[in-house]
This record gives sequence, structure tokens and C-alpha cells, in this order.
Amino acid sequence: MAAGATRGDLRDLLREWTAAAARMTRGRLIGEVTEPHAPPVDTGEAVGSPVSRLTITLGYGPALFDHRFGLAARKPAALAQLPPLPNENLDPDYTGGDLCIQACSDDPLVAFHAVRNLARLGMGVVQHNWMELGFGRTSTTTTSQATPRNLLGFKDGTRNIKAEQTGLMDGYVWVGAETDQPWLRGGSYLVTRKIRTFVESWDRDYLQDQENIIGRGKVSGAPLSGGTEFTTPDFTARDSAGQPAIPADAHIRLASFEHNGGTRILRRGYSFTDGIDPQTGTLLGGLFFIAFMKNPAQFIRLQRALAGDALNEYIHHVGSAVFACPPGLRPGQYWGGGLFT
Amino acid sequence: MAAGATRGDLRDLLREWTAAAARMTRGRLIGEVTEPHAPPVDTGEAVGSPVSRLTITLGYGPALFDHRFGLAARKPAALAQLPPLPNENLDPDYTGGDLCIQACSDDPLVAFHAVRNLARLGMGVVQHNWMELGFGRTSTTTTSQATPRNLLGFKDGTRNIKAEQTGLMDGYVWVGAETDQPWLRGGSYLVTRKIRTFVESWDRDYLQDQENIIGRGKVSGAPLSGGTEFTTPDFTARDSAGQPAIPADAHIRLASFEHNGGTRILRRGYSFTDGIDPQTGTLLGGLFFIAFMKNPAQFIRLQRALAGDALNEYIHHVGSAVFACPPGLRPGQYWGGGLFT
Repeated sequence: MAAGATRGDLRDLLREWTAAAARMTRGRLIGEVTEPHAPPVDTGEAVGSPVSRLTITLGYGPALFDHRFGLAARKPAALAQLPPLPNENLDPDYTGGDLCIQACSDDPLVAFHAVRNLARLGMGVVQHNWMELGFGRTSTTTTSQATPRNLLGFKDGTRNIKAEQTGLMDGYVWVGAETDQPWLRGGSYLVTRKIRTFVESWDRDYLQDQENIIGRGKVSGAPLSGGTEFTTPDFTARDSAGQPAIPADAHIRLASFEHNGGTRILRRGYSFTDGIDPQTGTLLGGLFFIAFMKNPAQFIRLQRALAGDALNEYIHHVGSAVFACPPGLRPGQYWGGGLFT
Repeated sequence: MAAGATRGDLRDLLREWTAAAARMTRGRLIGEVTEPHAPPVDTGEAVGSPVSRLTITLGYGPALFDHRFGLAARKPAALAQLPPLPNENLDPDYTGGDLCIQACSDDPLVAFHAVRNLARLGMGVVQHNWMELGFGRTSTTTTSQATPRNLLGFKDGTRNIKAEQTGLMDGYVWVGAETDQPWLRGGSYLVTRKIRTFVESWDRDYLQDQENIIGRGKVSGAPLSGGTEFTTPDFTARDSAGQPAIPADAHIRLASFEHNGGTRILRRGYSFTDGIDPQTGTLLGGLFFIAFMKNPAQFIRLQRALAGDALNEYIHHVGSAVFACPPGLRPGQYWGGGLFT
């Protein structure tokens, strides 16, 4: 939020965003572009583009509930800045935020248009902090899609929760009756991490090392304990030398719910690139990790378990944020409705 | 090119790139990913992705023909660094280069994979200078597509050369017998400009001002002299007050072939975003201008004509490069073939 923005400003903006998001996700302009003596309400670059499955998700950061907007009593107990975590060196240019807008679309222009226009409606009330353009969705969240690959070249999301697994969605993703804030029930927490991959180092590593680091075959996606992609990994299996078939520090072992008291999250990240580092000439890119969960403690537990991850030699977390995302709106509802009533 | 790279290195790399590009544009891996005790030849992130109309274009920058590789005699006379041009403040981080790889695809992951893998094949021989990920292609180059929009919200490319206009392609885009370098015949020159748009300022401008700056209606794309999108602009038309219907400093007037001795180019640019400027909080984005032409003098003439462009208040050129692109390869040919024989 911008300095000096008031509780009323925030409330009004969230109402305005609701209306604009509802229009855009139906493929409509947020307002007229025909009045000659005024700036067009909609910036217009998506005129004529199909709606391209645009979805818009709003999130509230922990700091939104400080003294500025009189919202302290509405703060969910589970919403707090993430503690220091392994393998991170966070850049303030990609970290935190009072509000989050996530726009997903099959067409990057449509997603960009949505974020730009919401940000513009907030001019003077919000202040832009950071923005990331992702591509190549990783971690499929539906059983109807083949598992996509991340920039490591590995399938990503084989064991992810799938939307069809309603029991898992209710158990690990959607906030339920356990929250102290009724407005958040049916919503979720979004944790995002900008994870830089040392692409050139990774690309020099031997296939066998890469597979041991992940714990799966690169092409097949099958766990190193055998089978095919969707075979359940056998973390107790040994190879012919008597060593664990899935190494002790393999990513899929340390990240597995079996090794984290059943903890799961719904990952829904994207690849990203920041081009070339002009100082070093290295390719900047990696995983813009996004995950949804019932409580940020789930991510914290999993990320702590990854302290010994063999993959840490090749990745580094440079950005981070956590947001509480209210549930999808029904007709007549608006973002912020649960906060201001 | 990397310091110390030799003529032989360059020749070998171009051959290797030819083979890899041929495989990737057919949807195949550039090499095996099955040898355990070696790095996978292909980085693998596009395994399982459709080929998504991948095309790869190679270009040679002017400096490639300096003393380093013994290619001075192969340098086309028309290939030279662009002179200083209006409204530019070039950042060396986005400017120049000995070689250019442009990968286009319906799937950004497939394009990224292509650039990454070619760059990787060149490790030690080439040095990464800059890379830009574009989205939202502007300036359609075919009559079969609706004209797309740029981040100004205007249709972009209405009067662009279309691939079906073979006379215009031969007249303005493909290098012909006029070149002093036979290897370039049937190829083209690629000029690229990273053009930052001052998005927030533009978005505050009145519709009528925006339309006067461009010279077209925002929604319709019709010239202000009347008609519909594809009506030929009448630059002599006057409005009811006796003023030019298309203002004297309108973008489409100054850029038109009618005002530039018939000069045309084939534009084929993309929108881009660099996220948020952490210093100012402004949205960084604009047009990654790419154009093909028979001679870079065409671009130079048009860009000089834009010195008085009303649009210059809202845009600024921050990156620039020019490359000579050899023609498409036939079976058995390879990139560099014309340079080294």
C-alpha cells in the first residue's frame, strides 16, 4: 500500500478490483475506452484477445493487518512473515508485499493486462513492489494433464495434489474451520519463492548425479526405486550395492509427505527468466515457486526438511512472500467483504 | 564470442548449431539424455512438449567480421553499427552482439529451451550478452490473423508487410542481387530495439490525445482520416476545423512509406516486461521491436523520420542491435557455410 492510504481507500479499492476482475475474467473491458477527453478506463491491449482462461487470485500479506488499516482483529493467527529458512538470501526487490495479485492465463498478454489494469486502478493507493512474469507452468494440478517439466529438465508435480483429489484439497489446501478468521474459510494461503537455478552448473552435472539429486529418472520421471512415473517411491529400497535406491539426500525423499508427518501442499509454480546477468554472463532463471496450503506452517516444515537437499547446490531462494487468499467470490460478494464488515 | 575463440571454433559451432536447430524445430532432442556418466546433451525441459511451431533465426553482427575470425572479406557493405538515432539512450546490457539467436514458438518454454541449448553448445566459444523473453506478438505478418495490440493498447501492424505480399517481401525484406555478399542473398537484416514505454504516463493521457499521437482510433484501428482499420490513411484529409485529420506529428504519418520515399520494413516485434523498477515503483515494459529488411538503411531512414514523433514523449529506446541473417537452409547446408567456403 502507498504511504498515507487509509482504511477507506483499501476498502474502496478492493471493491473496485472485484468489479474489474469479474469483467476481465469474462473477457470484458474493465470500463469504457470511448470518452475522448479522459484517459481510457481500460488500457486496451487485450481487446480482441480471447479470455484465455484468465483467473485472478487476491492475497493479503501479514503487514496489511498492522495498525494502518484497523484490521488487526481480522488477522489470521497463521499469517506471519516466514521465518528465516535454509538456502535463502532474499532480495527485498522480490520479497513481501501487503497485497498480491496473481493472474493466470493461457496468453501472457491477457495476464499482463489484468495485473496492469488492477495496479492502475490502485494508483495512489497501492505502490508497486514487484512483479514476475512466469511461463511453462510446472506442477500440474490436474490428473488430466501430462506432468510438465521445470528448467532442471525433470518432470515436476508427479506427486502434487490434484484438484480431483477432493479429500486432499480439503485436508491440505483449503482453509477450514480451524482458522480463527471466518472470512478466510474456503480460502488458502499462498507461499511464493523466487528460486534461482544455477543453470550452467546444473547442465554440467552428469545424468546419474542429476537423477540421484532428484530421486527420479530424468526422461521417465520414475522413482529410482523402480516402476513408472506414478509408481509410489519406495524409500526403503536398496540398490545392488546395498545403498538406498533413492539417496538419503534426494529431493523427492526429503520433500515427501512420508518424511514430513504427512505434510502436503499444492504446488502451482512457473519457470522464469531474468535474461543474462550483465556482470557474469550467466543465464538468470529458475522456478517461480507458488504453493497453496491450509497453513503456512506446512511450507515451513517442508522447506526446513530441505536443508539437506542435494539440490541446494544448484538452487537458491532469492524472493519470498506469504499471503492469505480469501475464497472465490459468489455473485454480490466482493474482495474485502469479510475484512470490513 | 568469447575472448580467444578462433575461426575454427566459430565454424564448428555454427555447424553444431545447424544440426541442433534442425532437430529442435522437428520436436526432437538435440542429443541423448541417457548416458549416466556424462551431462545430458539436451537439457530436457521441453521433453514431451509439442514442437509449438518453433523457428530459429541466426544473425551475424557487424563486429563478427572484424579481425578475429578472418571474415573481413565476407562482410556485407550494408552491415554496420547503427548510427546515433533520435530518442535513444542505449544500455550496453541490451545492445549489440556478434551473434543473434531468435527463437519463436507458441510455447515460451520451447523457445527458452532452444536458446538455452544453443547457448550451452557454445559454452567457452560464445559469451552471453543479453536475452529478452517477449510475449504478445505485435505486428502480424500474415493476412490470416487479426491485427494484435501492443502495450499502448493500439492495433499494431495494420500496414505492416504481409508474407502473402511477395512483391513487397522481395522489394523490401529479402536481400537480393544488390548485396555484395552472395551468402546473404535470400536472407535479411534484423534490426532490434528495446523500446521502453512509460506506461503510467501513457495511461493517464486522454483517449483523444492517444489517438492523435498514433493517428488511429484506439478500438477500431481506423485512421483518423476515416474508414475502417484497413482503409488507406488519407494524410491530406482535414478535420472540420481545417486541421490535418491525421496530425502532422502522428506516428503513422511520420512512419508511413508515403512520407519516407516508399521505405517499408517487415516488423515482427513482441511486448516485454522487466517487472517493477525497485527505485521508482514504475512498471517496466514496452515493445521489443524486431524488424526485417533488405538493408538497415531502411530502418535508419524511418527512425530518423520519427525524431518528431508525438509518441516520443512516452517511449524511449534503451537497447539496439543489427544482424545479417543468412537465408533458410536447404538439406545439407549449414549456418556459416557461406562464410567459410
